[in-house]
Amino acid sequence: MVGGGEGAFIGAVHRSAAALDGQTTLVCGAFSSDARRSRESGASLGLAANRCYADYTAMFAAEALLPAEARMEFVAIVTPNHLHLPIATAALRHGFHVLSDKPATLNLAECFVLRDVLVASGCLYGLTHPYAAYPLVVEAAERIRVGMLGTIRKVIVEYTQGWLAEPIERSGQKQATWRLDPTRAGASGCMADIGVHAFQLAEHVTGLCVTEICAELNRVVAGRALDDDGTALLRFDNGANGVLVASQICTGEENDLTLRVYGDKASLEWRQQEPNSLWLRPLGAPAQLLRSGGPGLGAAAQAHSRLPSGHPEGYIEAFANVYRNFAAQVRAHAAGARTTSGAALPVPGIAAALRGMAFIETVVAASRSAQKWHAFPEVSA
Amino acid sequence: MVGGGEGAFIGAVHRSAAALDGQTTLVCGAFSSDARRSRESGASLGLAANRCYADYTAMFAAEALLPAEARMEFVAIVTPNHLHLPIATAALRHGFHVLSDKPATLNLAECFVLRDVLVASGCLYGLTHPYAAYPLVVEAAERIRVGMLGTIRKVIVEYTQGWLAEPIERSGQKQATWRLDPTRAGASGCMADIGVHAFQLAEHVTGLCVTEICAELNRVVAGRALDDDGTALLRFDNGANGVLVASQICTGEENDLTLRVYGDKASLEWRQQEPNSLWLRPLGAPAQLLRSGGPGLGAAAQAHSRLPSGHPEGYIEAFANVYRNFAAQVRAHAAGARTTSGAALPVPGIAAALRGMAFIETVVAASRSAQKWHAFPEVSA
Amino acid sequence: MVGGGEGAFIGAVHRSAAALDGQTTLVCGAFSSDARRSRESGASLGLAANRCYADYTAMFAAEALLPAEARMEFVAIVTPNHLHLPIATAALRHGFHVLSDKPATLNLAECFVLRDVLVASGCLYGLTHPYAAYPLVVEAAERIRVGMLGTIRKVIVEYTQGWLAEPIERSGQKQATWRLDPTRAGASGCMADIGVHAFQLAEHVTGLCVTEICAELNRVVAGRALDDDGTALLRFDNGANGVLVASQICTGEENDLTLRVYGDKASLEWRQQEPNSLWLRPLGAPAQLLRSGGPGLGAAAQAHSRLPSGHPEGYIEAFANVYRNFAAQVRAHAAGARTTSGAALPVPGIAAALRGMAFIETVVAASRSAQKWHAFPEVSA
Amino acid sequence: MVGGGEGAFIGAVHRSAAALDGQTTLVCGAFSSDARRSRESGASLGLAANRCYADYTAMFAAEALLPAEARMEFVAIVTPNHLHLPIATAALRHGFHVLSDKPATLNLAECFVLRDVLVASGCLYGLTHPYAAYPLVVEAAERIRVGMLGTIRKVIVEYTQGWLAEPIERSGQKQATWRLDPTRAGASGCMADIGVHAFQLAEHVTGLCVTEICAELNRVVAGRALDDDGTALLRFDNGANGVLVASQICTGEENDLTLRVYGDKASLEWRQQEPNSLWLRPLGAPAQLLRSGGPGLGAAAQAHSRLPSGHPEGYIEAFANVYRNFAAQVRAHAAGARTTSGAALPVPGIAAALRGMAFIETVVAASRSAQKWHAFPEVSA
Repeated sequence: MVGGGEGAFIGAVHRSAAALDGQTTLVCGAFSSDARRSRESGASLGLAANRCYADYTAMFAAEALLPAEARMEFVAIVTPNHLHLPIATAALRHGFHVLSDKPATLNLAECFVLRDVLVASGCLYGLTHPYAAYPLVVEAAERIRVGMLGTIRKVIVEYTQGWLAEPIERSGQKQATWRLDPTRAGASGCMADIGVHAFQLAEHVTGLCVTEICAELNRVVAGRALDDDGTALLRFDNGANGVLVASQICTGEENDLTLRVYGDKASLEWRQQEPNSLWLRPLGAPAQLLRSGGPGLGAAAQAHSRLPSGHPEGYIEAFANVYRNFAAQVRAHAAGARTTSGAALPVPGIAAALRGMAFIETVVAASRSAQKWHAFPEVSA
Repeated sequence: MVGGGEGAFIGAVHRSAAALDGQTTLVCGAFSSDARRSRESGASLGLAANRCYADYTAMFAAEALLPAEARMEFVAIVTPNHLHLPIATAALRHGFHVLSDKPATLNLAECFVLRDVLVASGCLYGLTHPYAAYPLVVEAAERIRVGMLGTIRKVIVEYTQGWLAEPIERSGQKQATWRLDPTRAGASGCMADIGVHAFQLAEHVTGLCVTEICAELNRVVAGRALDDDGTALLRFDNGANGVLVASQICTGEENDLTLRVYGDKASLEWRQQEPNSLWLRPLGAPAQLLRSGGPGLGAAAQAHSRLPSGHPEGYIEAFANVYRNFAAQVRAHAAGARTTSGAALPVPGIAAALRGMAFIETVVAASRSAQKWHAFPEVSA
Repeated sequence: MVGGGEGAFIGAVHRSAAALDGQTTLVCGAFSSDARRSRESGASLGLAANRCYADYTAMFAAEALLPAEARMEFVAIVTPNHLHLPIATAALRHGFHVLSDKPATLNLAECFVLRDVLVASGCLYGLTHPYAAYPLVVEAAERIRVGMLGTIRKVIVEYTQGWLAEPIERSGQKQATWRLDPTRAGASGCMADIGVHAFQLAEHVTGLCVTEICAELNRVVAGRALDDDGTALLRFDNGANGVLVASQICTGEENDLTLRVYGDKASLEWRQQEPNSLWLRPLGAPAQLLRSGGPGLGAAAQAHSRLPSGHPEGYIEAFANVYRNFAAQVRAHAAGARTTSGAALPVPGIAAALRGMAFIETVVAASRSAQKWHAFPEVSA
Repeated sequence: MVGGGEGAFIGAVHRSAAALDGQTTLVCGAFSSDARRSRESGASLGLAANRCYADYTAMFAAEALLPAEARMEFVAIVTPNHLHLPIATAALRHGFHVLSDKPATLNLAECFVLRDVLVASGCLYGLTHPYAAYPLVVEAAERIRVGMLGTIRKVIVEYTQGWLAEPIERSGQKQATWRLDPTRAGASGCMADIGVHAFQLAEHVTGLCVTEICAELNRVVAGRALDDDGTALLRFDNGANGVLVASQICTGEENDLTLRVYGDKASLEWRQQEPNSLWLRPLGAPAQLLRSGGPGLGAAAQAHSRLPSGHPEGYIEAFANVYRNFAAQVRAHAAGARTTSGAALPVPGIAAALRGMAFIETVVAASRSAQKWHAFPEVSA
């Protein structure tokens, strides 16, 4: 693991997610840009002192020299955005698979570099979009894939939070500070932090691709260098339209990621706040409430849940699904297989990384323009 | 009443709403463009045969000749849009107050005519936007008026329905047919039917005015002459931004009008599907659920509810509030007073009518344009 | 109408409910035990002065002398419980049908008297249990009747309120005072006020009869002469068991009447706080949410709703269904028919009245006993 | 770990819960009564072969011989009920702390034996009641402890499931078979399986003790030797009354554990199906919705949650809180401290074990009796 020392939020989530199913073990880390804090973090996590590294460069070099059965198999990157590319490319060049936080890089150009290094390395690359790994999001995607919604006509995806309603970055709140700093976060604040999750979820679940975007980003709290709020209108490749709302200044909202997909045969609704429920509303018939662990779910959704119905699962479990799926990919890769066996699903990879970065750049450009619609760039993995 | 014969939906709602509080009595009507059906409708409603008129022209002429204590005091117009102006102006010219369904007229130009006739008549004009008359919408507006939300930053208003997900107008469904016919509905289908309610609700509750609009309207079901779906981005006069979604092709949605208003001190959320609840989410404190008839409500909200907490009220009661408020205005007008006494609130009038028509025309124009933002026209009552 | 003057709650509900559909017109009343207040109440309701009576005796005598087409057809009794019998029997003896608030009488013995007078009169008798007239309660009863739940195994019915959590009767709150006074309310407070609604709902929806009761009533707030809280365990005639909770000291609860019925094929859940929804949970299949006005409802439920789906209906509409149904019975009776035509359902009558009074007496007796189970008495209409 | 091999449900939950926070490591186990299956289970969990034992006797003997820093510190018992006592006492006699599934033993007499062995051992004993370890249940208990509800008047606790609505034990479903077998489950099925959770939750959160019980247990599905459904009326030591419903034949219910506590100042409501929410309803003020990770929570609740608000936590996280708290007790014990430091809360121990077994025996006895009320026995730890 690179990053995720004390004071970080997502590092602990990664570690719990990795530990949950007992398929991934944390063996080494460079947890902080400060060598001493890195070692202290590692020690508090029970790591051997010689595997708590001063920085990621030292870590990759040292681990690469270990015997195959002892060295780390993949690295989890949980740093601010601007470090994603250098760490990922260094790892790949040493032959380590990479599981990285989103967005993949600081900008789209960097992501093409990442793609090239990845292709040359022959290694695996995964992006942690945990929302797509909730059991009922898995079910939603499957229902759409087999045609139960008919032709998709409209997609509404929202991700609203309230934690940046006040200028907490001015008092040094660590999570807020780097996310609102263009040198560490990139060209966007809110869209790079949460909008890209909403975008990935919409494309992933529907199986559609956005082709045009109209966008308006806002810096609602005075003095911010990056957007903390925004809306994008979407056009999809099948002719469907969409609305994407992302905001971090929605006072009182927690982490309200909501996806609604309307087809001509049925619609689906899923909310992260009640993640174990999925509404299916068929045309002309009563709405059905699908539940995690409950009747009517497909094999994939079942495989992404651990408990019988009525035992709530949450964010860490969804994140653990990402780890379990990536571990399956790593095992399959080690065995020389091209695909995983069993019920594991592919973790979003370089294609999702490129589309995510293209999304961020397009909404930023569209927001600055007086023109309504902007083409989504071609990005191929 | 003009319109609202058999097969109509809203006429019966008007009649129930008028009857609920015993302050308005239906005394005459021209219920159909077919004279015989008009008489039959009137008879089935228990009206005297001589007050079931063949058409509105005859009705206004005849009623105007009755002694003051016997003749109707105001007319409710419940016809398709294209008839609103001729009926309203005829009524006003005969000295009858008008309570009209929305949108006020077929287009903005007509609405200016209406305004001029109204001013000349000295009569009252009300528009039935029942959603604004729910007790907890009254409460929401009051909370914002007194500053409990602080500065408003963002408004999200959605009105989604699924009843036009299929081309039911082709099989002659009466409600669908005229709403999708430009000669009867005007330049817009969905936005004129429900978008204008969402717009009125957003402006009314926040006390803000939209100044710019970016819009995209869609004809999702093939063959339609008017939009059945659309989204508008909004800019308000205080700098807040907004999103307005209106759609009638959202399979499985019923009549899901939802309003969320985010201020820098608190936010509010109200949904028509659970109309007796209002969420208030103060910054840094637990969310509160305000309930119709429950503790913490202001005098205005209390006056717009009839029952103790826990006894649900619905759409007809909200509509009845419009009638009760308009009846209070009529009584006050008859008494020579300029404002109503007691807890009655003004029914949206010609100013709301003009803004509603301006909204419809602006979203239509903005949707056809390649330019992102369009100024909202100046319309003054 | 007898009772329901100023300060009363339920009188206004009756009047709104009667007015809503235009099938019942208030023509006369004795609204208060004070003759002057009765006249004032009547005048404020727009009644002719000569039909605002000083008391019910005078009203029945005078109305009976009016020509058939002018006199009232039935009387609504909206007084405290101890007056139900004398008013109802006086009305019946004058040939007026009776629509009475529950519980039917002060005790079971009185109810047998009522039954005898009713039978002798040849008139109609209805009891206002409005909850059974919500569209989705109608649907629930129908689903069970046709066997969709299979064999019913368990019934949980709860009616919790918080309005008597404080001793408001000491400060003279009118609604509380008489409900806690044995001379006006009878042998029970909470069970006679709301428990009997829960009991009626459970028997009515399931079509089962309670055969044995174990009960515990409590006077939670010190100094009360009657119960303000209680629980009853139930045994039904098909072997099913049940739990009935009624309480008026549940701080923070509004009017939370909830019914859950579990069969071996499916279960149903309905809550008055969201009255337009009914959960159907089939064995081994996803739960379905049935909605008022929505797809999948039977003819009876549709006939008990007035609006398309998504337009909420509430308590007054349910109460209006009672009035509409009773009006249909009155019309059918006048026409010499034994049953109503069309979609009207029978209003609970003397059989329900007797069972309700038997319920109240049995829970009171069971609560006082050290023995667990008590037989439910045979009461036949 | 003893028990929890393949096919078991709760063993995997224990392992995930233990792993989540990295404070407990699974080092050995006797996972099955079949020695070979035990070894296979252990191997699949990554345990060294020499620490996968054929049975618990062998395990305790072998582990006790290991050096202190290598041997297991405590044993988790995840077997059917009849094995709890022999395993727990064997462990304690070898000096191992015990974390056991509920109910503690097969009957109350066994639990007294357990108590005596425990006292003699000087070891720690914990019982896995995970529901009490949800962050918002922690908050509920704390709010009551500091008096925010005032005097508690009524407690309603329900635990309804539908998984035994059909006789799945006849087709050999492993979870059902032993739970309905008196030799392995004890004198009760439903009450020993889930009723005891509801009982513990009610006493734990309120801080009150049940003093009298009236109960009715049912064998709803024909042919069962033990209850699959039941209700108990409760009397608490402060005069409050309560209702406890537990059922496993509630078709369509998942795992719906619900607790409502009514005081004279406020009430609380918590449901396991939405575990991150807690309703607080103060007398005469709007209801508040407290949320995991959200504003207004006390230090204890915060310490029992891992994520910011809006990131759902579930059953495994609650279970992990039990493990984390027990690990803190074990560490404190090793350090010679009598209480844990920091925010850890005590895991329910032998006192809860005794009261749980007394509850089961009392409801069974009360159900068989014709007498209404039965005293809850004195049991002291």
